[in-house]
Amino acid sequence: MRAVIPYKKAGAKSRLSPVLSLGEREEFVGIMLDQVIASLEEAGIEKIDILSTSGYGLEAMEKARVLIDENGLNEALNLYLEQAGEPVLIAMADLPLLSPKHIKEIISTEKDVCIVPGKGGGTNALFIRNPSLYQVKYYGSSFLTHCSIATKACQSLEIYDSFLAGTDIDEPEDLVELLIHGNGPSKAYIDGKFRLEVSKGRVKLIPL
Amino acid sequence: MRAVIPYKKAGAKSRLSPVLSLGEREEFVGIMLDQVIASLEEAGIEKIDILSTSGYGLEAMEKARVLIDENGLNEALNLYLEQAGEPVLIAMADLPLLSPKHIKEIISTEKDVCIVPGKGGGTNALFIRNPSLYQVKYYGSSFLTHCSIATKACQSLEIYDSFLAGTDIDEPEDLVELLIHGNGPSKAYIDGKFRLEVSKGRVKLIPL
Repeated sequence: MRAVIPYKKAGAKSRLSPVLSLGEREEFVGIMLDQVIASLEEAGIEKIDILSTSGYGLEAMEKARVLIDENGLNEALNLYLEQAGEPVLIAMADLPLLSPKHIKEIISTEKDVCIVPGKGGGTNALFIRNPSLYQVKYYGSSFLTHCSIATKACQSLEIYDSFLAGTDIDEPEDLVELLIHGNGPSKAYIDGKFRLEVSKGRVKLIPL
Repeated sequence: MRAVIPYKKAGAKSRLSPVLSLGEREEFVGIMLDQVIASLEEAGIEKIDILSTSGYGLEAMEKARVLIDENGLNEALNLYLEQAGEPVLIAMADLPLLSPKHIKEIISTEKDVCIVPGKGGGTNALFIRNPSLYQVKYYGSSFLTHCSIATKACQSLEIYDSFLAGTDIDEPEDLVELLIHGNGPSKAYIDGKFRLEVSKGRVKLIPL
């Protein structure tokens, strides 16, 4: 099997712009990417690809193969799946709470497809045993779409229910989850910039 | 063992007021409460208590014992724990995605305390094997607080990692999760009022 991480550094994570500058966001996505790669490695996955529209920020990448495809995410991933010839785990690059244990459990599924839902109907990770029989369709409510693609292709389906793997880092409130539940370099980076404060019974992010 | 559900109907769920009227919110919390009770029952829990500051909305409750305590949540729950004399599961009333399977797994923990984290550092459910040795402290970052209370009391700790059990319904975006991942009466109620629409790659709630 192999894993693929779609990745884009340039102008990344615009929804974090209220709390992080462009430079910080680009630095932070690189740190998250490295952490996801480390978790995949620690889970025993030896073949790891990064799929990006450009080589920006990936010039020195040694831990994964870098594939450049200027097409959109879905088109690039579907070509990748077509050519894979072995089971594929698609993992997003913004999942610093995804642990090696999660990954081992996801790829150990007895089903043909295992979907890790993210907030707001997203798909955070997707294990596809038979990639020639499956196509992805990210954006929008991709979780429901990915369930229905599996069903239509007669592929059995597991939904992997995890708060941590389900937390993709898109918005300032997701950084709260990282500070509370995280560890490793991504948490350390955010720890260096914010602290948590409880006000009116809710947890808020306060710049240091 | 027994389960206790803190509950307040009057003026409930003010953070849903942008999308539901007071009457709707009060109706909806009653429906969610009934669904949580049904899940606890289906998981085999026979003794279920509702802890409320008033009997409002609980006049006809037959499936659970109603305990009125006018004190604040923490004070009332800590008195409850003091008097319990057996393991206690505290489950919030706004967890329509908490399934009987989750509950069975939570109460089957081999640890002394099992915490189900919710978004933003909250605690959605809390299993306490030795309630005389434990005190709760909800509000704020209660997840971290509840972890540290367990550690200080020398109680072993499990963190139950579930996207679904981790989804408490507080804000309009949580209703999106209910529509995508839910089932039963709570989902049916919201299904009757909203539909999902995908716009700019994100899922939004549209009133019917």
